[in-house]
Amino acid sequence: MDDSKEKQPPVPVESTVPQAVVSRLSLYLRELQQLVHEGHATTNSTQLGTLLGFTDAQVRKDLAYFGQFGYPGIGYRCEELIAAIKKILGTDRSWPVAVVGLGNLGRALLRYRGFNQQGFRFVAAFDVDTHKIGETVEGIEVFHLDDLSEVVAAKGIRLAIVAVPGSAAQAVADALVAAGIEGILNFAPVTLALPDHVSRVGVDLAIELEQLSFAVVNRPENP
Amino acid sequence: MDDSKEKQPPVPVESTVPQAVVSRLSLYLRELQQLVHEGHATTNSTQLGTLLGFTDAQVRKDLAYFGQFGYPGIGYRCEELIAAIKKILGTDRSWPVAVVGLGNLGRALLRYRGFNQQGFRFVAAFDVDTHKIGETVEGIEVFHLDDLSEVVAAKGIRLAIVAVPGSAAQAVADALVAAGIEGILNFAPVTLALPDHVSRVGVDLAIELEQLSFAVVNRPENP
Repeated sequence: MDDSKEKQPPVPVESTVPQAVVSRLSLYLRELQQLVHEGHATTNSTQLGTLLGFTDAQVRKDLAYFGQFGYPGIGYRCEELIAAIKKILGTDRSWPVAVVGLGNLGRALLRYRGFNQQGFRFVAAFDVDTHKIGETVEGIEVFHLDDLSEVVAAKGIRLAIVAVPGSAAQAVADALVAAGIEGILNFAPVTLALPDHVSRVGVDLAIELEQLSFAVVNRPENP
Repeated sequence: MDDSKEKQPPVPVESTVPQAVVSRLSLYLRELQQLVHEGHATTNSTQLGTLLGFTDAQVRKDLAYFGQFGYPGIGYRCEELIAAIKKILGTDRSWPVAVVGLGNLGRALLRYRGFNQQGFRFVAAFDVDTHKIGETVEGIEVFHLDDLSEVVAAKGIRLAIVAVPGSAAQAVADALVAAGIEGILNFAPVTLALPDHVSRVGVDLAIELEQLSFAVVNRPENP
């Protein structure tokens, strides 16, 4: 076996796993972390499924994309499955992340606590407004978009969050691709055209509000 | 049969449906809307499941919480299922929504386009900073939090988004409860203590970044 083969992780390539399965991994991870927090050492597909409203078969099918994690007569060892899922998600390491667009959304994201807890670390912000360049937000320096390639290379940035208006998003995405960014989280309300070697995730915050309206309209006292 | 019974919708009460099932309804809705956009009149549990990485049994089980939607030999009629899911989610109507906290996050949310597309309409914003009171952001007037009850009643507001720092979130939530708000979408990194008759949804944006890191680490060229 040569070196390059030994370095390959025991996970399939992206194209074979539906994106919805990946987002469920995050849900399993949160539930497992909560179970450990509550003192549980083991769990199983039925318990995990019940917590999330999945069938036990769905849980097993989702995890089977990535390997064999259960033990006969035991189920899953929580800490072990947490470590495995983090490795699969890539959050077993720290990711240097850039934010492009220092409007309200960009600033809000720099202040958002949840990213850091899961291994994402902001290391640079970018804008084109000269009044903002050189400013420091939450300890993060704001650079001009013209310096993108240089800063991305110097800081080893691989992921970027696009928080600019829709009209500017494609041009920013093109600049990010040219700078060597590998993945883009897009908050702009447009579908970005990106080359195949750059990953993308779009954010749809309305889903959260839909869950809330569901909860309200389905109360017994709200016919 | 008395009046109150006739007014009850043909959906179960919230407590019997796992929250994860509800968030999947939003995913089904987006896929159905896309299918209609592409000219499809019908679909089925296998196609919907394939698009989202679910088994067809999972799709049928999820929808079965809310009724019978399929036709033998046809499957689901897309427009009919869209209307049914919107009714279940409560987005077959327009919801007047308030934002509390006019910091960067609150302002960014007022500008976010995705809410309006799904039937959520901002009608008021609240803050305690007297410099912001009376200001208009994206056409929405900013009121003092002291006027919450009055404005909520006058504008018929039922849902609120909490976009204040964690240290202020519980006090804001208490004020929202006192004002008669029925559901709270919480972006603050704290768990809110709320009475049972008020619904809540917390937002975890790190899940989106986890999907992105997964996509990047699982590329064939990124061992």
